[in-house]
Amino acid sequence: MESRLINLLYRDAYYSASDDLSTKEKCIFASMKTEVDAVVLMNGTDPNLDTSFFYATGIPNGLFEGCIAIVTPKKTEVISSELEELSAVTSGVRTAVFESTEHRTKLLERKLRGYRAIGINARELTHANYLKIKKAAKGIKLLDVSQDIENARMLKQPDEIVRIKKACKIATLVADKIPEMVSEGDTETEGAAELNHMMMRLGATGPAFVTAVAFGASSAEPHYYPGQKKLRKGQFALFDFGAEYKRYVSDVTRTFICGESNPRQREMYETVLEAQMAAIDAIHAGVSGKEVDLVARSIIDRSKFRGRFIHSTGHGLGMSVHDPGAISYARDMVLKEGMVLTVEPGVYIKGFGGVRIEDDVLITKKGCQILTPCTKEFRSI
Amino acid sequence: MESRLINLLYRDAYYSASDDLSTKEKCIFASMKTEVDAVVLMNGTDPNLDTSFFYATGIPNGLFEGCIAIVTPKKTEVISSELEELSAVTSGVRTAVFESTEHRTKLLERKLRGYRAIGINARELTHANYLKIKKAAKGIKLLDVSQDIENARMLKQPDEIVRIKKACKIATLVADKIPEMVSEGDTETEGAAELNHMMMRLGATGPAFVTAVAFGASSAEPHYYPGQKKLRKGQFALFDFGAEYKRYVSDVTRTFICGESNPRQREMYETVLEAQMAAIDAIHAGVSGKEVDLVARSIIDRSKFRGRFIHSTGHGLGMSVHDPGAISYARDMVLKEGMVLTVEPGVYIKGFGGVRIEDDVLITKKGCQILTPCTKEFRSI
Repeated sequence: MESRLINLLYRDAYYSASDDLSTKEKCIFASMKTEVDAVVLMNGTDPNLDTSFFYATGIPNGLFEGCIAIVTPKKTEVISSELEELSAVTSGVRTAVFESTEHRTKLLERKLRGYRAIGINARELTHANYLKIKKAAKGIKLLDVSQDIENARMLKQPDEIVRIKKACKIATLVADKIPEMVSEGDTETEGAAELNHMMMRLGATGPAFVTAVAFGASSAEPHYYPGQKKLRKGQFALFDFGAEYKRYVSDVTRTFICGESNPRQREMYETVLEAQMAAIDAIHAGVSGKEVDLVARSIIDRSKFRGRFIHSTGHGLGMSVHDPGAISYARDMVLKEGMVLTVEPGVYIKGFGGVRIEDDVLITKKGCQILTPCTKEFRSI
Repeated sequence: MESRLINLLYRDAYYSASDDLSTKEKCIFASMKTEVDAVVLMNGTDPNLDTSFFYATGIPNGLFEGCIAIVTPKKTEVISSELEELSAVTSGVRTAVFESTEHRTKLLERKLRGYRAIGINARELTHANYLKIKKAAKGIKLLDVSQDIENARMLKQPDEIVRIKKACKIATLVADKIPEMVSEGDTETEGAAELNHMMMRLGATGPAFVTAVAFGASSAEPHYYPGQKKLRKGQFALFDFGAEYKRYVSDVTRTFICGESNPRQREMYETVLEAQMAAIDAIHAGVSGKEVDLVARSIIDRSKFRGRFIHSTGHGLGMSVHDPGAISYARDMVLKEGMVLTVEPGVYIKGFGGVRIEDDVLITKKGCQILTPCTKEFRSI
C-alpha cells in the first residue's frame, strides 16, 4: 500500500519511463553480435558512472553509484542502493535494494544463476567493478559488448529525440541572447554564469558540461575552462555550452567578436562558417562520416588556415556529450537515419585565438535536421 | 620560442601548478604499500575520467579524454591529445602529444620500457583502458594501487585546502542568501538556477554536481534531481549543492520551510540538527569515523525518527564530491588531521519529506574546522 501511494504521490514529478523501457532492451539486443543471456551494467563512484545504465533503465533522476542493471531481451532489473530506491521504483523499473556490498554480490549471483554468457560494457565499467562482476559470475563467460551497446545507442529512439530536441531548444534560445547577456569587461566565468542561468530558467537540469567561455587567445584552446579574464575590445569571445534535460544533452558553439573585427578575424570566421555549412550540406543517411569530415577539412586546408583545424568535425550526442558516433577523418562510419551528431569545425591559432561554430543535427534520409537553428552571422558583443 | 611565448601569454589565466606537482608524486609514493616503478593513470571518455589523473598532474583546465599520466616518485609525464596540449603545457607538466591511438600506445610502450611493475587505479580506470595498458606493458606486472592512491588523496595538501576553502566559501555565501533567492511558487529548477548563478558569479567554474532542490515529499529522496514542482506553503525546501573551483568542490545542504512549519517538521529539523552538531563535536584526529557516525545515528535512533537516517554521516571531499574517506557505520576508518569530510545526517519520511543538514569540515588535531559556516537556524522561505 505504502509504495503504491508513493508512486501516486511522486508520479507527476517524474518522466514516466515505463513505455520506453522495453524498446531500449530491444535496441540493445537487436544490435547484439555476441551471444549473451544478459548484459550487466555497473556504476562506479561519480564521475565513473556508466551512461548505458541510464540508457537501459530510463531512470531520469539520481546518481546510482555502485548500482547494477541486468538487461535481458525481455526485462531490465536494477540492484539499487537504498539511496536511489525511490528514483528506481518510481521510474517503473523492477528493483532490488542492497543493504551492503556483500548483499549486492549475493543478489547479483542469484540473478545471474543459470546464465552461460553475460555481456559487459568495458568502455564504461571500471576495472575494479569488472573484477566484482567476474567474482559474482562464477563459471559464466564475460564478453565485452560495448561496441554492440554503442551501435544501439547511436540510433536515437523517438523518446530520446524528444529530450534531445528540448535540450537543443534551450541552448538555441540562449545562443541568440548572448550579445545581450555578455558585455565588454565581463569575466569568462561571469559570462558562463549568465548562460547557465538562462539554460536553467528554461528548464535545464544543469549545464551539460563545464560551460566554456573563452576570450581572446584562450579561444584557441578547444577544451578551455572559463577563468577570470575580462573581455576586451577586438577579442574573440567563444561560447561552447549545452543544456542537460532529463539526462540528454545539447552542445552548441558560437563565436563572437567584441566590438570591431579585423580582416584576419573575419577571414577566420568566414572560413569556419563555410566549412561548417558545407559539412551540413554533405550530410545524409548513407554518407560516410569520413567524407563529411573531408568536406569541412578541405575548405579549411585550402585556406590560409591550413592545418589549424585540430579535431574531428563532429561527435555523437545523446546521454553524454561525447556519445558514440563520430564525423571524423579517423573513423570510417556510415551516417544513418536517427543518429544525432555535432558539426563543429574550428580554426585555432595559438596566442591569437580560435573560431568554432557548432550545431547539433539529426540525420534524416535525405539530409539532416538542424536542432540548434540559432544565428550564425558573425555578431559583435 | 613559440611555446615560451604561449606560456607567458597564458600564464595569468592559469593556476601555476608547478610548485605543487612534486608534492603530489611524493604523496602518492609515500603512501604506497605496493612496490611499483610508476603509476599509470588513463582517462576514458567523459564522464569516465580518472580524478586521480588531475590530482597527480595538477592540471586545472581541460577534459583530457583518452589521455595518460605516468607518475614516478620523481616526475609526472602526460601523454596528451592535441586538444588538451595547451592545458597540459601551460600547467608546467612534461607533455608528449599523440596523434592517433596507435601513436599513443607507442608512446606509452616507450615510456614504460625498463619498468618491472606499474600501478593502476582500478577504481577509476575503465576495463577497456586496463586492457590497453596491459597490451602496452608487455612483460610488466600490473598491480592495483587504488587503495594507496585513495590513502594519499585523503590527506589534503595546503594547495588543495586553499581551493576547497574557496569552493566552500562560495557555497556558504549562497546558502545564507537562499531565502532571498527562492520564493513560494518558484519551481525546483528555477531555484537551482538561482543558486548556480550566484555560485558562478562568485567565481565557481560550475556546480560541483546537479544542484538538488527538492520541495515537499521530494526532499525525502537523498539524490533527487530538480523538476518542475512549485514550492508551496508548509513544504520543506531542501537545497543540496556545491561549487567547483579549480577542480575542487564543496558540498552543502540546508533545509528550509516555506511559510510556517508544523510541530512534526520542527521536531525533524531539531533532531537532525542535534545529530549533526553532536557529530561535529565528536570529530578530532584519531577518532574513528564509525564512532562519529554512531553519535549522529544514535540521536536519530533514540527519537521518533528511528531508522529514517538511511545513509552514512559523511564522505570525503576534494576533487570529487565523493572523494575517498567516509564517516560511516560500514567503515572502520580513523580520521586524520588534513582530511576534509562532509557531516550530513538526515531524516527521510517517504511521502512526507526529508531534512538534511550538511557541512564540510577539515579535521584538525583537537577537533575540526567548519568550512561552511552558514546559519543552521530553521529558517522560513
